[in-house]
Amino acid sequence: MLRPGDTIGILGGGQLARMIALAAAPLGLRCHVYAPEAESCAFDVCAARTIAAYEDEDALAAFASQVAVITYEFENVPAATAAFLAARRPVLPGPRALAVTQDRLSEKDFVAGIGLPLAAYRAVDNEASLERALAELGRPAVLKTRRFGYDGKGQAIIRPGDEPAAAFERLGRRPCVLEAFVPFVREVSVVAARGTDGTVAAFDVCENEHRDHILAFTRLPATLEAEAAHAAAEHAARIATALDYVGVLAVEFFVVADGGRERVLVNEIAPRVHNSGHWTIEGAEASQFEQHVRAVAGWPLGSPKRLGAIEMENLIGAAIERGPAILSERGAHLHDYGKGEHRPGRKMGHVTRVST
Amino acid sequence: MLRPGDTIGILGGGQLARMIALAAAPLGLRCHVYAPEAESCAFDVCAARTIAAYEDEDALAAFASQVAVITYEFENVPAATAAFLAARRPVLPGPRALAVTQDRLSEKDFVAGIGLPLAAYRAVDNEASLERALAELGRPAVLKTRRFGYDGKGQAIIRPGDEPAAAFERLGRRPCVLEAFVPFVREVSVVAARGTDGTVAAFDVCENEHRDHILAFTRLPATLEAEAAHAAAEHAARIATALDYVGVLAVEFFVVADGGRERVLVNEIAPRVHNSGHWTIEGAEASQFEQHVRAVAGWPLGSPKRLGAIEMENLIGAAIERGPAILSERGAHLHDYGKGEHRPGRKMGHVTRVST
Repeated sequence: MLRPGDTIGILGGGQLARMIALAAAPLGLRCHVYAPEAESCAFDVCAARTIAAYEDEDALAAFASQVAVITYEFENVPAATAAFLAARRPVLPGPRALAVTQDRLSEKDFVAGIGLPLAAYRAVDNEASLERALAELGRPAVLKTRRFGYDGKGQAIIRPGDEPAAAFERLGRRPCVLEAFVPFVREVSVVAARGTDGTVAAFDVCENEHRDHILAFTRLPATLEAEAAHAAAEHAARIATALDYVGVLAVEFFVVADGGRERVLVNEIAPRVHNSGHWTIEGAEASQFEQHVRAVAGWPLGSPKRLGAIEMENLIGAAIERGPAILSERGAHLHDYGKGEHRPGRKMGHVTRVST
Repeated sequence: MLRPGDTIGILGGGQLARMIALAAAPLGLRCHVYAPEAESCAFDVCAARTIAAYEDEDALAAFASQVAVITYEFENVPAATAAFLAARRPVLPGPRALAVTQDRLSEKDFVAGIGLPLAAYRAVDNEASLERALAELGRPAVLKTRRFGYDGKGQAIIRPGDEPAAAFERLGRRPCVLEAFVPFVREVSVVAARGTDGTVAAFDVCENEHRDHILAFTRLPATLEAEAAHAAAEHAARIATALDYVGVLAVEFFVVADGGRERVLVNEIAPRVHNSGHWTIEGAEASQFEQHVRAVAGWPLGSPKRLGAIEMENLIGAAIERGPAILSERGAHLHDYGKGEHRPGRKMGHVTRVST
């Protein structure tokens, strides 16, 4: 259990690390951010920083010696890095969460293994297994690389008439998963925290609107039948508990209309604070970032109670130039991540509107 | 007008600077904190720091060259420091606010000069003027040093039978002000922001409870007749406008019962964010810290709308050890300033409770 004044080490220096550090400060904790990029926006709000590669063992050892616990803002922490650090300090969420979620196949096997609903899927390693999987799942289907996919990267949809081998080629012939196409009516997610004592505190289910495979809006309350909303929260808690998880995680779901009733299928697990939880900074009693800090510190979780109707809008690329206009909008809360130059598809900030 | 990515320079590295920096980050601004103490708690959350004396002109010049605007967390910035910096970068709030409020006599003359009500007072420079002032104002009366007083320091009450010369001696025979004793029923304050365009946005009047001359609790809504509350807000706006103020200021008032009606008398002006405004972090749409950042950046002010009934409790000295218990209290927002060792009378943190 951390004591006030202790330091949390964070791997990754982007906006998620930045917002974790901003939440740690009021709780009396310092943050030390470790990132390879000298321009990391989290450096601006932390007590200490290390600029080094994730493979630099001298830098990792020095970092570990200066922190009480280590967490991360992205799931693709190299396994060797995680193992090296875990031998020196607690790494939370733990190695199992990383191992399961770094690979789409192991993640889906895990979800299926604990009995939760998800789209049909098959492992794909070569053209032959791809053909076989397509024959079993039908078209359209979605081919995804098992590792390092995010924001629609590493994905290809295979429609009737498409040449499967071309899609596989486009993804670099890397190990893949083929997923049955889900005719979803909506996408929702549950962001939840689990403490060291096993308590799970889930935020309300939120409804997500993606554009070009990138989250564009999160809205609450979600349009969702009560039973499906209840199931989503249960599924997230079941996942967190089965992973013996400590910290905040997000579970994304597809909502399908199934014989007049809405059902949720697990789409993806993110073992970290999540973009669809940014609304909690102003929209909940304790934000996802505060919950994550409390959890990895071994402290009791705060209240996830929602404070109003919410709209969170991502400011992607040039949209950050609307910042000055947003500053004049009554009740709008601007979050500019301080990244400097904007590029298409780069998450530069967000704005949250809470109506009470 | 600042642009996103610009840096705000802050003189002073205590909790007020820390909370200004935490509010600047979501707006995409960096902070550079300048303080003489290596252990300054604001350093933990800012992009850059300078540890140097306020008289170190080389350090001040380097600091000024790295920031777009300069503000401060305490009113006792040496006049020479302010002048040196103001020749290089905008210093906000401006020199007039500092000059007026650094000296109790000039502050009272200013308040009286713009026609606002305050307790009767007299300048005291020696035993003779003290005797004369006491004869005019009666006893009890409060002798206060003109400069460097805070949290009850630099004050002595002179009651019937007391030896005035002893009180003057105790205050170091420094230039003083004698104030008529105000039989106040309550203390309230108004925290308000004024933007570069002259707009004033005041937070709701708050009620303050002091213990041992240090703020212990702030509560809202204040127990105060509507007319007096209206007058307090008007007085604060009048003061801000007369000082051509940019940033957040606090005006503390005595509430007196005057022939069955409540009236407010100006007690003190603080040209900075203020302890009685800490509740705004969770209790208002835009906090006093965000308002201050917006104002000194030349940006439009946010909304000061209050979100519920509020209690802010200061955690002074050993009270910070209640932190862990507060973390388990539903709806309580802990703010631990990360100062490390506690000492009697030292402001270590605060907790805000908002009921909606």
